Amino acid sequence: MSITTPRGFVAAGLAAGIKASGALDLALVATDDGVAVPTAATFTSNRAAAAPVQVSRAHLAITGGRSAAVVVSSGNANAATGDRGRADSAAMCGLTAAGLGVEAEQVLVCSTGLIGIPLPMDPIRAGIPRLVAARAGGPDAGADAAAGILTTDSGRKEVLVGYPDFTVAGMAKGAGMLAPDMATMLAFLTTDAAVEPGPLAEVLRAAVADSFNSMSVDGCTSTNDTVVLMASGRAGPGDPSLLVDAVTEACADLAGQMAADAEGAERIFHVQVTGARTDGEAHRAARKVADSLLVKCSVNGADPYWGRVASELGSAGVDFDMDRLTIAYGGTTVCRGGVAVPHDEAAVAAHMAGPMVTIECGLDLAAGTGVVMGVELGYGYIDENRTTS
Amino acid sequence: MSITTPRGFVAAGLAAGIKASGALDLALVATDDGVAVPTAATFTSNRAAAAPVQVSRAHLAITGGRSAAVVVSSGNANAATGDRGRADSAAMCGLTAAGLGVEAEQVLVCSTGLIGIPLPMDPIRAGIPRLVAARAGGPDAGADAAAGILTTDSGRKEVLVGYPDFTVAGMAKGAGMLAPDMATMLAFLTTDAAVEPGPLAEVLRAAVADSFNSMSVDGCTSTNDTVVLMASGRAGPGDPSLLVDAVTEACADLAGQMAADAEGAERIFHVQVTGARTDGEAHRAARKVADSLLVKCSVNGADPYWGRVASELGSAGVDFDMDRLTIAYGGTTVCRGGVAVPHDEAAVAAHMAGPMVTIECGLDLAAGTGVVMGVELGYGYIDENRTTS
Repeated sequence: MSITTPRGFVAAGLAAGIKASGALDLALVATDDGVAVPTAATFTSNRAAAAPVQVSRAHLAITGGRSAAVVVSSGNANAATGDRGRADSAAMCGLTAAGLGVEAEQVLVCSTGLIGIPLPMDPIRAGIPRLVAARAGGPDAGADAAAGILTTDSGRKEVLVGYPDFTVAGMAKGAGMLAPDMATMLAFLTTDAAVEPGPLAEVLRAAVADSFNSMSVDGCTSTNDTVVLMASGRAGPGDPSLLVDAVTEACADLAGQMAADAEGAERIFHVQVTGARTDGEAHRAARKVADSLLVKCSVNGADPYWGRVASELGSAGVDFDMDRLTIAYGGTTVCRGGVAVPHDEAAVAAHMAGPMVTIECGLDLAAGTGVVMGVELGYGYIDENRTTS
Repeated sequence: MSITTPRGFVAAGLAAGIKASGALDLALVATDDGVAVPTAATFTSNRAAAAPVQVSRAHLAITGGRSAAVVVSSGNANAATGDRGRADSAAMCGLTAAGLGVEAEQVLVCSTGLIGIPLPMDPIRAGIPRLVAARAGGPDAGADAAAGILTTDSGRKEVLVGYPDFTVAGMAKGAGMLAPDMATMLAFLTTDAAVEPGPLAEVLRAAVADSFNSMSVDGCTSTNDTVVLMASGRAGPGDPSLLVDAVTEACADLAGQMAADAEGAERIFHVQVTGARTDGEAHRAARKVADSLLVKCSVNGADPYWGRVASELGSAGVDFDMDRLTIAYGGTTVCRGGVAVPHDEAAVAAHMAGPMVTIECGLDLAAGTGVVMGVELGYGYIDENRTTS
């Protein structure tokens, strides 16, 4: 599988020397014929958005949602770098565009790494022409690109979803909780389905809501988060609803790979909220529980202390009636009507000791549902995040 | 100093047997003549509010803001206990009222401890008559009461603020971050100033906003948080604006004692935001930074990684312009105009290594200011919170 599997795409990755480790640190995904194709993207909501986010947003606005390539650097976020940062991101697009023979506005750019340090442009200026020259189809080029976007990830994250009429491929970076200074989440998807920019943006919005936006590592919103979806159209027109399913499946798979790659975090958990007033309220309540330091510590300690879950639901800012609340761990109900109920404690203990904990919260108000995936809080998070050195 | 120092109040504290340790676990503050006096209270905003919060709210509504006593139990929160919990809290008020010869509605009740376990009423039923009988003026009775409300606190928290015309006294519990299952904050204040219930409520609201509500331990909102202020009027009418100052000073002192009592947490930090669009936006931005897991880890590691601070400000949901941002640690500016500036790194390192870190954030938009106190995130928090056993 590779980002180049859908028809119409090439890729490349190489070590330009941004990372002191010598690991791959530049990546490219481009159309194989230099034509700008419908492209959708979602960016961080952070108002301190990094320079590459600002530049990519502007480029997509200019082209009306079409691009010919995405260029990515890893090891430095180019965030909190002001005018110089914006010029550097624009220069990355310009160099890539020159190599591909397209307009600079037809290139998107992403960076990930430390914040507040200017991008080392010498290796990047030397690297991008080599990167463009190395672009190719096939799994090796795709693997290089998938490696070139990583920071503290333990390995490449790739996905391929095949439907009868089209294919969706993706690659991502983000080891979530334990990617300290580089907690950015980046994902790149390609498809050969034929869809115009407007509908493509809707597809991506829906897919991201049910995948990356339903995952909580530490409640922090990175300055660089970006998801890009390019559609070559080589497969011809297909069923738009099938494309939503395929892209959602690809995004959810990548999100799961990120959660599983939280080095040092041995346990993740799903918070499922049902019976909320709306799906939006269910999602908000689930996120409050998943973000809770106390709940995250309980998961680390394999302690089914449901009182903390109830307390978080009660302070989530959604409609809530304690007397209607049900809480279960892995299918075993521990609280009903807002109070403790006798239950199979051995079953709960066994569930809590496993690698994936499920916390089911029934609000019994209406039909709203939502799920958010969270990560335990243990020594590993602190070890990785207390210093940048 | 003691909660009984302002004229008109008596207190008591004893070990009823709620806590297995044998420590004091019941406390009483009452008027010395059984008269219900103007009383203000602020309660948790959590919709999963514990039974004592529900009962106390109802009592204050019935009396129009007057009460003769507050009875407090520690060791069990009586939260997530349903109808039985409400009956138990009402029974605590009834027993106290019977002993004092007042109406049950003239008694407020608070509990703090584990969630989800019914209150052990046998020791409480036996203890309250003894508690009422033991009530007295003077520092010893006040000290007993201050001890009877504690859970994992390392010691009593008391304050006395003397003004020419009146006195404000207070006691509190809450060791903040390391009070795992008992993270509730309780504070009780008495004054001999003369003020009607309505203005008294305004006084307390203002004081709490500038003290307890400007402190963030872990972003969690307890089911039991309560602050009560009783005014005996024995000092005669005074200047209301002076009373606000005195109560704010008392609350801020108690909040500081709580932060300092976070065992295992050796470093706390103040986030000061200036130049925000409004004071409210400044406060919200400061809280976002103070609650950030990544910032809390940086403080634990004494690492002045200001990029994380900028990222939190940018995602706080307030007006923000990265290009106008200034960040300083302990007075040393590390970021200006949203980018790194050369600075005295030794001065910053020395500041970060101390017990109290100050992070100053200038948004340069308008005149809004806000300060929130935060606590580092280290092994201690996880050790104390991962299991309830």
